Amino acid sequence: MKLSDAETPRLLLDPDRLQRNIDMMTARCGKLGVILRPHLKTPKSLKVAQMTTPDTSAPITVSTLREADYFAQGGYTGILCAAATTPAKLAHADKIQRETGARVLLVADDADLVNAADARAGEMGAKFEFLIEIDCGEHRSGVQPASQELLNVARALKNASNLQLTGVMTHAGHSYTTNKADEHTAIAENERAAAADSADALRAAGHDCAIVSIGSTPTVLNARHLDGVTEARAGVYLFGDLAQVSLNTRALEDIAVSVLASVIGHNTAGKSLVLDAGALALSKDISANTFMPDAKYGYVCDVETGRHFPGLSVHSAYQEHGVVPVPDECWFERLPIGSQVRVLPNHTCMTCAAYDTYDVVRGGEIVEQWPRVNGW
Amino acid sequence: MKLSDAETPRLLLDPDRLQRNIDMMTARCGKLGVILRPHLKTPKSLKVAQMTTPDTSAPITVSTLREADYFAQGGYTGILCAAATTPAKLAHADKIQRETGARVLLVADDADLVNAADARAGEMGAKFEFLIEIDCGEHRSGVQPASQELLNVARALKNASNLQLTGVMTHAGHSYTTNKADEHTAIAENERAAAADSADALRAAGHDCAIVSIGSTPTVLNARHLDGVTEARAGVYLFGDLAQVSLNTRALEDIAVSVLASVIGHNTAGKSLVLDAGALALSKDISANTFMPDAKYGYVCDVETGRHFPGLSVHSAYQEHGVVPVPDECWFERLPIGSQVRVLPNHTCMTCAAYDTYDVVRGGEIVEQWPRVNGW
Repeated sequence: MKLSDAETPRLLLDPDRLQRNIDMMTARCGKLGVILRPHLKTPKSLKVAQMTTPDTSAPITVSTLREADYFAQGGYTGILCAAATTPAKLAHADKIQRETGARVLLVADDADLVNAADARAGEMGAKFEFLIEIDCGEHRSGVQPASQELLNVARALKNASNLQLTGVMTHAGHSYTTNKADEHTAIAENERAAAADSADALRAAGHDCAIVSIGSTPTVLNARHLDGVTEARAGVYLFGDLAQVSLNTRALEDIAVSVLASVIGHNTAGKSLVLDAGALALSKDISANTFMPDAKYGYVCDVETGRHFPGLSVHSAYQEHGVVPVPDECWFERLPIGSQVRVLPNHTCMTCAAYDTYDVVRGGEIVEQWPRVNGW
Repeated sequence: MKLSDAETPRLLLDPDRLQRNIDMMTARCGKLGVILRPHLKTPKSLKVAQMTTPDTSAPITVSTLREADYFAQGGYTGILCAAATTPAKLAHADKIQRETGARVLLVADDADLVNAADARAGEMGAKFEFLIEIDCGEHRSGVQPASQELLNVARALKNASNLQLTGVMTHAGHSYTTNKADEHTAIAENERAAAADSADALRAAGHDCAIVSIGSTPTVLNARHLDGVTEARAGVYLFGDLAQVSLNTRALEDIAVSVLASVIGHNTAGKSLVLDAGALALSKDISANTFMPDAKYGYVCDVETGRHFPGLSVHSAYQEHGVVPVPDECWFERLPIGSQVRVLPNHTCMTCAAYDTYDVVRGGEIVEQWPRVNGW
């Protein structure tokens, strides 16, 4: 189907840019000497997983059990579910493991949770492997690196009958608070050291720690080295977005997804275009705007070339309307009602979550549709 | 299923509160002497439609053709799609009309669009009815009330072979910029006058104008009278949210939907709880915060009583993590890891859009699941 015949809004995917992003991060992790465990919370798509991780026994990351279920049903067997679990979630994790034979690695940062999870696992006759989450400076979750608390959680796992300690993981989410490469490098070193020092502390206390997992797109791209780390998790690099551009970690030309939208109004008095892509089609996430205030709810681009129309972004996002101020009236001739544009996402994970399908585009045509999984 | 056995996050619906909200607005429109055409972009659910509009020949409003399609397949025959259309969307509107016999009322505010739509309708052998959109002060879209531009669009519709002018519609979205009842009343009067004056101008020029449609929850609740108006559109009143509470148009006790979430972490150093409901489960919409800064990404409430824990809201929303600062450590005992809370939505239309299903709750049990339609 030609783009011009397509009903809007819809989510477009450029497979060549995606492939370049995959190749870039694969090479980067190879150079750093770590396994890439891509975070598939960004694409939530089996087709994308098959591009980034063709070997279904290689490791992947997800953020929900629905994603874990979906990728396990798709053949993946080494799945880290990278948000702390609860006893009530174990039945689902067990079902995935039993039905598919996949190993679902779970996360905990609390000894009481470990004890409760062990009891629940015992009731179900299930076994689970855990990574302990470390706080490397974001102060969202996790135990302090190489701390007594870390050893307490490890001891609880050792004492558990149905659980096993497999390693540690941390995420430098605070890498998103700066757009300076040297600060990304410093945060990457904190992230690396937090994980590696914690692994050392566990081993010194007699625990196994096979997996030492770190990651965020800005830190993996800016780390000097990853000594002591076994694997890196990153996800946003797959598609890129204005937030990554604002952090100087990706370029506009790397962004692999965009929202195809139509002009549905000309506000000649207010000098703005109205698009049929609003808050639901673009999301209300404005992460990029800290360092790139003109990102707004997304850059408005030429539908054919994909190039940003300088100065044009979605300033207001209503449920199904996006408003794009224009500098002069020539834009009303250039973009008549019914014409199409592409909008580059502010934060790709949030924008993509509104869609069940990627429309894969080559040469101005939608050549394939790839499903994605949403919800919980 | 008991709530305590339910995997989180999920979207809960209190059917008694919903019924009260429906009764309230039905009575309100009865008193104002207008037909209620509920805006189903909020619930996007056939079950909710059947509660608010049991007669499937009675009018409803939607904001996308996917919603129109869904409700038409569900038996509804009088559907206003309340965002301006484009020629490329007409094939879908035609398919809905042909397959279901429903009448899909479309919206335009531009004579060129009308001419292009007429040509497209002719190619398809289809007929469409249109409302002309009026700008009553929000300055997002629409022609000026009773203006020459209005008459130009009406003339284009009159000259069209395949289109028919059926009326006018306007939406006072700027009612969301104040939380004062007298200002809501003033904006409601602008909205009413813009629609009624435009209808008068059309009739004076020899056009029919059967439908005169206005609406937003704040204006319908605060209008003194709706003389000259035939119908009111509103949607958020069905579920309510913190944005409506912030505008003093609904109370906390009216909010019929909440997100069931689990505590997945205790950050003792940062004195915060971590929930498994983050930016995807709650949305990043912070509309309520203008007049209610403590709304943040949602109020945290007791899972059983639904009552707000004073001072507790979701301050930070990551993709799958919500962070809730707590004033003191007693909250860690009160809400242990694995325990559940409910989160009241900041903006209900955005929060609900992340879910395919409402879990209908009575007496602490999920007694039914109602599907909803998302996407485009």
